[in-house]
Amino acid sequence: MTDSINDERLWQSLMMMAEIGATAADGCNRQALTDEDRAGRDLFRRWCEEAGCRVDVDAMGNMFARRPGRHADLSAVATGSHLDTQPYGGRFDGVLGVLAGLEVVRTLNDQGIETERPIEVVNWTNEEGSRFGPPTMSSAVYAGALSLDVAYAACDEQGRTLGEELDRIGYRGEAPCTPRDWHSFLELHIEQGPVLEAAGKTIGVVTAGQGMRWFQCRTRGQSAHAGTTPMPLRRDALESAADLVLRIRDAALDHAPYGVATVGQLRVRPDSPNVVPGRVDFTIDMRHPESASIESMTAALKSAFEKVAKARAATAEIEETFASAPVDFDAGCVDAVCRAAEHLGLPHQEMVSGATHDALKVAAVTPAAMIFVPSQGGLSHNEAEWTSPADCAAGASTLLHAILDRASTGTD
Amino acid sequence: MTDSINDERLWQSLMMMAEIGATAADGCNRQALTDEDRAGRDLFRRWCEEAGCRVDVDAMGNMFARRPGRHADLSAVATGSHLDTQPYGGRFDGVLGVLAGLEVVRTLNDQGIETERPIEVVNWTNEEGSRFGPPTMSSAVYAGALSLDVAYAACDEQGRTLGEELDRIGYRGEAPCTPRDWHSFLELHIEQGPVLEAAGKTIGVVTAGQGMRWFQCRTRGQSAHAGTTPMPLRRDALESAADLVLRIRDAALDHAPYGVATVGQLRVRPDSPNVVPGRVDFTIDMRHPESASIESMTAALKSAFEKVAKARAATAEIEETFASAPVDFDAGCVDAVCRAAEHLGLPHQEMVSGATHDALKVAAVTPAAMIFVPSQGGLSHNEAEWTSPADCAAGASTLLHAILDRASTGTD
Repeated sequence: MTDSINDERLWQSLMMMAEIGATAADGCNRQALTDEDRAGRDLFRRWCEEAGCRVDVDAMGNMFARRPGRHADLSAVATGSHLDTQPYGGRFDGVLGVLAGLEVVRTLNDQGIETERPIEVVNWTNEEGSRFGPPTMSSAVYAGALSLDVAYAACDEQGRTLGEELDRIGYRGEAPCTPRDWHSFLELHIEQGPVLEAAGKTIGVVTAGQGMRWFQCRTRGQSAHAGTTPMPLRRDALESAADLVLRIRDAALDHAPYGVATVGQLRVRPDSPNVVPGRVDFTIDMRHPESASIESMTAALKSAFEKVAKARAATAEIEETFASAPVDFDAGCVDAVCRAAEHLGLPHQEMVSGATHDALKVAAVTPAAMIFVPSQGGLSHNEAEWTSPADCAAGASTLLHAILDRASTGTD
Repeated sequence: MTDSINDERLWQSLMMMAEIGATAADGCNRQALTDEDRAGRDLFRRWCEEAGCRVDVDAMGNMFARRPGRHADLSAVATGSHLDTQPYGGRFDGVLGVLAGLEVVRTLNDQGIETERPIEVVNWTNEEGSRFGPPTMSSAVYAGALSLDVAYAACDEQGRTLGEELDRIGYRGEAPCTPRDWHSFLELHIEQGPVLEAAGKTIGVVTAGQGMRWFQCRTRGQSAHAGTTPMPLRRDALESAADLVLRIRDAALDHAPYGVATVGQLRVRPDSPNVVPGRVDFTIDMRHPESASIESMTAALKSAFEKVAKARAATAEIEETFASAPVDFDAGCVDAVCRAAEHLGLPHQEMVSGATHDALKVAAVTPAAMIFVPSQGGLSHNEAEWTSPADCAAGASTLLHAILDRASTGTD
């Protein structure tokens, strides 16, 4: 066999899928369970069936396209990602992983290769979580981390539930949304960050996923007239919040290179040019791949809040609202990815996923790993998101060889 | 004569006026040129006429209630403030100064006192500027600082112009909006700040108004994924903005006790918990009573922006959008206020007005000064705004004696 998938066919499929929900600025708006999502699903299903696969749909609308192996009773090697996008999303986030899985099947067909194990290509429903929260919703249900009823009851901004919308687009399937008989799960995804580009590497061998904590924070002072209130008599909530923003950054820098902390949302009240802010509400998104560091970063944040509350005139409070533990991927799956990149002579490095992905949910029930390819400028969740045709092909070829590696073992 | 105005009548008038536009939380919503403003004006006109005054209305709707003096050809001593309120305003801001002027006339009537000079009590149109910008609009037109056409063209959020609304409520008067034949202008107002309360003083003898500059500021970095973007590769616009908020505060503290600087409005983009902020826009409101300090504070702010732009990864820009020079009140008027407070044995101190007021505009064309009384907790532009009956009466009695002082000189 050749070492590569069909670069042009992969790229053409990506661009055809991108036409469904295409935005004026070359991005994609194909949010979960919209008419556009249905059209994308229908196209994927047709392509899979044309490639000889049987397509199952489960109770969450997850789609599983199965290519038989030599031994029907062996557990499958699965791969895939998601076809849904952010409202102003790009053409690669999720889509590359699904269509690269299809391209692997097409390449095996072209070359008449029969694997020992079956192969399944998955499209996970509603990975983005932008229309219905939370993100990675369906892989979470699949892995038992979220109940089906809670997922069905999720509402979009128009008050439509996910369950209703699954029915409306005809993708509430008959298969139960529970772990399937899988040997491994491998997900190719764009990096969505700047690390590979900065390092000049083509392939990221993802060994783990960061743990994450979210905090809701508030500072409370006293809103007051900007002209009549002398500085020493102020209780300026924004002064305290600004101090905290800098200390939160320092706490992350103390946990370099993997620690990150972000104040992404910050709102000032009453938000008027001539009124001293009386209250500020802001979020912290904190991540680290090691549990011990998550704990010590949390302690550092809490200490910063205590110090600022003591040193400045406003109160300062921090409350944890969400936590997910770090995930270590399976050593066997990680090795398979590493060997595939080496076999192809592609510059690669081990790395940790900063974003959340379906594979991190699946890892709780199936040995899993991920492959990253570079995102130009680190951009993602953005219409200008871009990964070059060569990098898409390199990722898909790495996926091909990692799947062949995992699917060639003949016993469970 | 007695030394005091009629405390109870003043308080009753304040509370009756507060019923027009009363809010559920004991505040007032009587914005300029609304039906409520018309009702407030009609009541004021009736009270003035009942007190024997002739009421003139000028082209901006400013109302002038004239009590004759012994010499009809002498220039008048004027006093007053405004009856319009903020959307969620209180019962005292502006209203106290108008109704205390009326109470002075009523007291002089009660005691049969004829002053040498005529007295005029003014209700300035649209001091607040919350429905139609800018604030102190009509005193600015009166003093020649703003053109009548620009004022007429000001639009509210529903697209109605100030000129149309003046006609609609029947308060576009025939008198020209130009300086009248005034000897002095004295304005009583609540402090709207915490200084008098903190000092335990009843009367603020206002000697000057702060100069003010407004700046629109922006930091620009790169929005990026909160999980996948390592701290050293970030260009976080909020990090730079937070640093600036603290440096802006320091620049004001370096100009204590009079310098103040406020970041009151701050907006983060894209304002999402898991996205590093790519841009922040914020305002600075900076004030000081001395021109030289205004200049040196401005230089300190600009230097802070240069330092932060150099030290951090985002750009940082500052642009001046508005400036008003400091105003020194007239020494003769200030002395009259001071003597009045001393005569009444009221604890008083000289102070600078941090807020903008009609008297600061009038001062450009007529010798002027102001009297402040305490605001509980420094609160204003707030439904909970409060000045005690005793403090309202003390302010009105001080106004009475200052007016008698100024109105007793027999030559121009």
